[in-house]
Order: sequence, then C-alpha cells, then structure tokens
Amino acid sequence: MSEWFTEKHTDFAKFLIKTKENVFSGESEFQKIDIFDTQEFGKILVIDGFVNVTEKDEFIYHDMITHVPMATNPDIKKVLVIGGGDGGTVRELTRYKEIEKIVMVEIDSMVVEAAKKYLPLTSEKLDDSRVTLLIDDGIKYVKQTDEIFDLIIIDSTDPIGPGEGLFSQDFYNDCYKRLSDDGIMVNQNESPYYEDTAMEMKRASAKLAATFPLMKVYQFHMPSYPSGHWLFGFASKKYDPVKDLKKEQWEALGIQTQYYNTDLHVGCFMLPTYVKEMLKGNRERI
Amino acid sequence: MSEWFTEKHTDFAKFLIKTKENVFSGESEFQKIDIFDTQEFGKILVIDGFVNVTEKDEFIYHDMITHVPMATNPDIKKVLVIGGGDGGTVRELTRYKEIEKIVMVEIDSMVVEAAKKYLPLTSEKLDDSRVTLLIDDGIKYVKQTDEIFDLIIIDSTDPIGPGEGLFSQDFYNDCYKRLSDDGIMVNQNESPYYEDTAMEMKRASAKLAATFPLMKVYQFHMPSYPSGHWLFGFASKKYDPVKDLKKEQWEALGIQTQYYNTDLHVGCFMLPTYVKEMLKGNRERI
Repeated sequence: MSEWFTEKHTDFAKFLIKTKENVFSGESEFQKIDIFDTQEFGKILVIDGFVNVTEKDEFIYHDMITHVPMATNPDIKKVLVIGGGDGGTVRELTRYKEIEKIVMVEIDSMVVEAAKKYLPLTSEKLDDSRVTLLIDDGIKYVKQTDEIFDLIIIDSTDPIGPGEGLFSQDFYNDCYKRLSDDGIMVNQNESPYYEDTAMEMKRASAKLAATFPLMKVYQFHMPSYPSGHWLFGFASKKYDPVKDLKKEQWEALGIQTQYYNTDLHVGCFMLPTYVKEMLKGNRERI
Repeated sequence: MSEWFTEKHTDFAKFLIKTKENVFSGESEFQKIDIFDTQEFGKILVIDGFVNVTEKDEFIYHDMITHVPMATNPDIKKVLVIGGGDGGTVRELTRYKEIEKIVMVEIDSMVVEAAKKYLPLTSEKLDDSRVTLLIDDGIKYVKQTDEIFDLIIIDSTDPIGPGEGLFSQDFYNDCYKRLSDDGIMVNQNESPYYEDTAMEMKRASAKLAATFPLMKVYQFHMPSYPSGHWLFGFASKKYDPVKDLKKEQWEALGIQTQYYNTDLHVGCFMLPTYVKEMLKGNRERI
C-alpha cells in the first residue's frame, strides 16, 4: 500500500511525501507519533503531523545543534539535552571522548521507545554509559536540579503542545542558572520564512537576548523542514561562537561530519538582511 | 475558483501551492508558461511545471545572482544576461549607475511579454535605456557576437528543454571568449539535495572548473525552489569572490538589499561538507 503523507506548511502550501509503509503510529498523553518508511527520505518521524526527523537529512540538524557549540568550546564536559527523543543529538555528543556526562530529559517515553525500535540511526547511542536518560518534564527538571552544565541543548519540537514551555522566559532563566560561568545554550529557533515560525523565531530570540550576555542566531539548509531554512540560537555567558571558534582544536579531534565544518561554522552566522531585520524587530515578515 | 498548483520535486515528493487565479497560461515554441496568483507567494511564474519566480522570494535569487559578482568587482561596466526573461536580474543590475550597458538575450518572447504584463515587480526595468533586449538563442549569440563583457550571468531554467544547451561545455567556452581579462561569469548551478538536480550541479561545476582558472560555488536559501537549497556558480578569469570582495566600495554605493549583504557574501561560499564532497566527485548523493 503506497500513500502520501501530507505536511501542512501553511494554509496555502503543503508538502507531500510518498510513503511505502506506516511503520508505527501511537498517541501518547502529549502528542501523536507516526513513523513512515518513504522512498525519498528513508524512515521519517512525524510528530503531530510535522516531520521531525528523516533518515536522509537528520545529519544536518544534529551536526548543527552539537558541533557548533562543541567547536566553540571543545572542553565541554557536562551536557544537558532537553527533548531530542529520537537520540540524534546524543549520538553526536557521544562522539566527543572529552564529554563525561550527558543528561537527556525527554518528556515523552513513546518517542524514545519508537526511536529505539525503528530509528536505530539516531537512537543507537542512547545506551552509552555516559548518558542518563530521564523521562521527565524538562521545565521541571531545570527548575529543581542542582547540577551545573557546560552546555544545554534545547532540542524541542515547535512551540505548540509539549514544546511550548521550552520557549518561555521562565525556562530560559532557569537554564541560565544551571549553566557554568562559561556555559553555552543552543536552542531550536524556528524559521524566518513562513509567518507562524517567523513569529516564534522573533519571540524566542528576543527572550534569549534578554537573558544572556551574548545571543546569536545561525542558519542551515534543512530541506525536510518547511521552507528548508532553519535556525538555531546560540546563547552564551562568555564565548562568541565566531571569535572563539577553536578551529585547530576541534579539527584535531578527527570527528568526521557530513554537513558541519569549521568554515561553515563561521558562514552559518552570516544571515540574510531580511532575517537580521526581523531579529532586530525592524521588519514584520518576509 | 481556488485550486492547488502541484510541483513535482521527485517521483516521491511534491509541493502544493494554493492558487487564487490562473492569471496567464500559454505555450510557446519552447515551453509551457503559467502565471498564478497565490495567497502565500503572491504571483508565481511557472515554466514547464516548475516554479521560476515568486513575488515573495524572487529578491533572494536576484540579489544573489547580481550582487555577489558586482561586489567582487564594482567597476563592471558591460554585462550580458542569458535568459532571465522575468527581468529580475536586469532590475538589480540597473541599480548600479556605473554599469553602462546590459545586453539581455532571452530565447522566449512569451516569457518576457507575460512578465511585462503580469510581473511588473521583476520586469519594471527592462526598458531602462542601458538595456538591449534581444529575443534570440543565447548559445548562438555568444558564438557570433564580437562584444566583450565584464560579467556574464546565465540566468537559465533547468537543463531540460531550452535551458539544456546553457549547461554545455561548448557554450561555457564561448562565454569565456566573450569575457574581458578580469571577467566574471555567474550561472544558475542547481541544487545538491535531490538526485536529478545534484547530478546537474556536479556536471555544470566540473565543466566550469575545466574552463576557468577559478570556479567556486555559493549557496542561498530559496524556499520556493525544491529543497530550498540552491546554488550559483562563480567562474572567473582573475577575481576570487571572497579574497577580492570590495566590501567598503560596494557598501559606499548605498544599494539597499533584502537578502544580500557583504557578510553573507563571504558566508555563502562556506559549503556543507557533503556538497563539497559531491563537487569534488568523492560522493554520489546525499
């Protein structure tokens, strides 16, 4: 049976992916989770109707969410991942021998279980001995824990449903407190192109800029996401991701990547004028 | 009447755009031309079923095809545009007072006439006094003309139908001969993400690298094109687009742009590893 999965980008634009098989479907207390096998993208993880992960291009997202902060400070030892249930972010982090501890707090056990069963490509390192996987609310976790981290990665879904609180000022404040003096936070920062995601991009960036001494946005080409133009936020107590890039130190680690490289690290912070204007609050939309 | 225009990205992925009105449809001796009015993208020009121009994001494409070479050498005086029937490339070029002559050679008069009538946003400067518009075969034109240009822009459709010869070695050789000693050529260089365009990207880049002393590829976010990840080629007899960027000289011109800026100029040449590997011939596909 071959059908088409439809993702609604806006009321007026949609993307259709031909599916070979509906590998998994479930409804947790938080969200609807589907995994389809497809010809074009391999297996795809869909949450509440939106593509979260595809086997074809997940490496782009996971490269950019981990290696940009890690090449800014390769001495990072303790990392907190909020969300990221598919495991791809943790997989990339485990490639750093220098990282001693990774705490991952994912609210939805069904995402983790489905990924472990059907997406070994991303989930394969969730059982690394340095990883502590907590099925819990990330917002509650950062409010209650005493632990201090060198890096916090907010690998969230869009700010609808369980992802919503992960875009709040209160949560960002709590994260700030849980970071070491040279701590870095990276967050899924939405996209400038369509109206809804652009609004979230502006909101999240403004809140982060109000919380951290340094906040920059970086971009990457993520074809399986709406518009293909996606952003992460880089918020930091000390390091500037471009000026403080440890090019030689990172390259000496010998980590092979398919998307990230240290030239791109610099290039990805060079944003289009319209995006810069939107981030400054001088422009409403494209 | 509201319907959906469907663009086939591959056999297994398609993009649907809701239309308000079919503004124009015609079939020339070369191709099928449609213009739709849409909610999300404004008016869109569709050639043989592929989105060529949208009012929403044409500025991205036209910024990147003109300002990257112009900021590398702001002293460019004579420009040849092959294709570009919608007029957007010429519009951006006419913003440079220093440019004395623009020859545009478009094979299909129907594209130009439709753009003049329904897409004033892109076509408005086609009647600039410095512009000579020839309805002719660009391949034949560069073979026969004696003119010498400082910049040639190949603003072509995909290498199917009339665009095909604009990706040939013979045509690139002829362009080389028509360029001044410090001449630059920029071409529409396809996309790395889907198999068909990736093959054309590799072919075109290899041919240009064999023809010119310097050939680099640069990328931009073009959401209305398949995958949103698009490339132009920069081939040159003398200038390196990054090392020879005339940042101050270009900025002193005071040209306001919505996508291009001189930081992005440098950043857009920083390519993902997988794209670099494909361009080197070390990798078949993503």
